[in-house]
Amino acid sequence: MDDATARIEDAKQLVREFCEARDWDRFHNPKDLAVGISTEAAELLERFRFKTPEQCSEILRDPELSQGIREELADVFYFVLRFAQMNSIDLYSALEDKIAKNGEKYPVEKSKGNYRKYDELS
Amino acid sequence: MDDATARIEDAKQLVREFCEARDWDRFHNPKDLAVGISTEAAELLERFRFKTPEQCSEILRDPELSQGIREELADVFYFVLRFAQMNSIDLYSALEDKIAKNGEKYPVEKSKGNYRKYDELS
Amino acid sequence: MDDATARIEDAKQLVREFCEARDWDRFHNPKDLAVGISTEAAELLERFRFKTPEQCSEILRDPELSQGIREELADVFYFVLRFAQMNSIDLYSALEDKIAKNGEKYPVEKSKGNYRKYDELS
Amino acid sequence: MDDATARIEDAKQLVREFCEARDWDRFHNPKDLAVGISTEAAELLERFRFKTPEQCSEILRDPELSQGIREELADVFYFVLRFAQMNSIDLYSALEDKIAKNGEKYPVEKSKGNYRKYDELS
Repeated sequence: MDDATARIEDAKQLVREFCEARDWDRFHNPKDLAVGISTEAAELLERFRFKTPEQCSEILRDPELSQGIREELADVFYFVLRFAQMNSIDLYSALEDKIAKNGEKYPVEKSKGNYRKYDELS
Repeated sequence: MDDATARIEDAKQLVREFCEARDWDRFHNPKDLAVGISTEAAELLERFRFKTPEQCSEILRDPELSQGIREELADVFYFVLRFAQMNSIDLYSALEDKIAKNGEKYPVEKSKGNYRKYDELS
Repeated sequence: MDDATARIEDAKQLVREFCEARDWDRFHNPKDLAVGISTEAAELLERFRFKTPEQCSEILRDPELSQGIREELADVFYFVLRFAQMNSIDLYSALEDKIAKNGEKYPVEKSKGNYRKYDELS
Repeated sequence: MDDATARIEDAKQLVREFCEARDWDRFHNPKDLAVGISTEAAELLERFRFKTPEQCSEILRDPELSQGIREELADVFYFVLRFAQMNSIDLYSALEDKIAKNGEKYPVEKSKGNYRKYDELS
C-alpha cells in the first residue's frame, strides 16, 4: 500500500499492532508520547542544522541522506499515529477542523504570498 | 471523512490546497517545515509540562482541554503531511519500512513489556 | 574555575574563542543558533524518554549515564551562551528581568506548592 | 549585576530562591525540567519560523521584537540553571569539558570556515 491507497486507519493499525505485540500500552501515556513526537521532530530538524538552503536541497537529492530524512519523518509520523490511536483522536477530522480554523486566521486575500503571523496581518 | 475512510493522500491533498491557495510553496522549504514540525510538537508537549500522570489523564477527559490537545496534534500532522508532500515522501511506505527496521531492533521476545533502548537490550 | 568562581562572561568567552578559532561566526546566525539550542535540548530530554521517575533518578545516580546528562546540558548551555554573545544579550540582566516578571504572574501566596499556569490561578 | 560581574552561581541562586519561595522543588524532577528546557527552546525558535535571514536580522534590530527574543532566551537559561542546581551539575566545568571534547572532534585545521559534522570531516 501507499499514500494513495492506504487509509489513515491502516497506518494507525500498523503502529498499534507493532506496539501491542510488545505490550507497550503501559508506557504510552500521553505525556511520554508527546515527548516521543518532540524528540523525533528534533532529530529530523537536526539534519538541517547549520545548513544553507543549497545544502538542504542537496540533502534531499542525495539518495542516502534523503533516506535518513524519510526515516526521521516516519518516526514522527509513528508517534503522531500512536498518540491519536491511544487517545481516540480522529486525525482526519482534527486536521479538517484545524484547517478550517486556520482559514479564518489566514484569509486567502491577506495571506497570499506572505507569511506573517495572523496577528501581524493588517 | 474520517480516519476509517480517508486515505493518507486525501489528508495530504487537504493541506496542499490550503497552502497553494495562499501561494506558500516558496516558504515551505524542508528546513523551515522541520522547524514547523518541531515547534508544533513542543506546543503539544507544553500542555503536559509539570503535570502528574493523573493531571494528564484529567486533561484528556476535560472537553475543552482535550480539544486543545487535538488541535496541537493536528498542527503537527499538518506539517508532517506538508513536509511529505513537498519532498515527495510516501508516508505509508516510509512508516512500513521504519516499522520493519524497528522490528529487528526491538524483537518481540526481548522487548515485551519493557522499554529499554535497543542498545540496552541484552 | 567552577560556577562559584566563573563569571557568566568567562563562560561566554570560552565559547567565543572556540567558535572564532574555527571561523564559525558566519554560520551562527540567530535562527540556526535557536535550532542548535532546540535540538540539543531534545537530546537531553531524549535521555528521559519513556522513563519512570524511579528510572530517571537511577540515571542521575549512575556515573556513566549522569555524565551523559551533564554533557547534553553543557551542549544546551553552549548554544545559549553563543546566542547571547552573538546578539549582545546580557544573560544575567535578562534573567533578572524575566524573574521579576514571573514573580508578578506567579505571586508567592498563590503559587506556593502548586504549579498551575498563571492563567489558571484564581 | 551583569554578565561581566555575576558569577554563574549568582544566576543559579537567583533561580533557586525564586523556586524555593514557591515550594516548587517537588515539581522540578529532571524529566520535567528537561521538558521545560525543550519547550522554552522551541518558543525561542518559533520567533524565527518561516523568516528569511533578512527578517531575522530585522527582528533583532526591532526594540520590541528583540525584547521578546531576550525573554525567550532568559526562559531557557532559567531552566538550564535550575536543572544544574537541582542535579548538582557544575555548568562551568561541564562546559569546559565539553569544549575540550568538541575540540578533538572538530580540530581547528579541519573545521576552519566549514561546518560539516565531525563524521563528515575527511
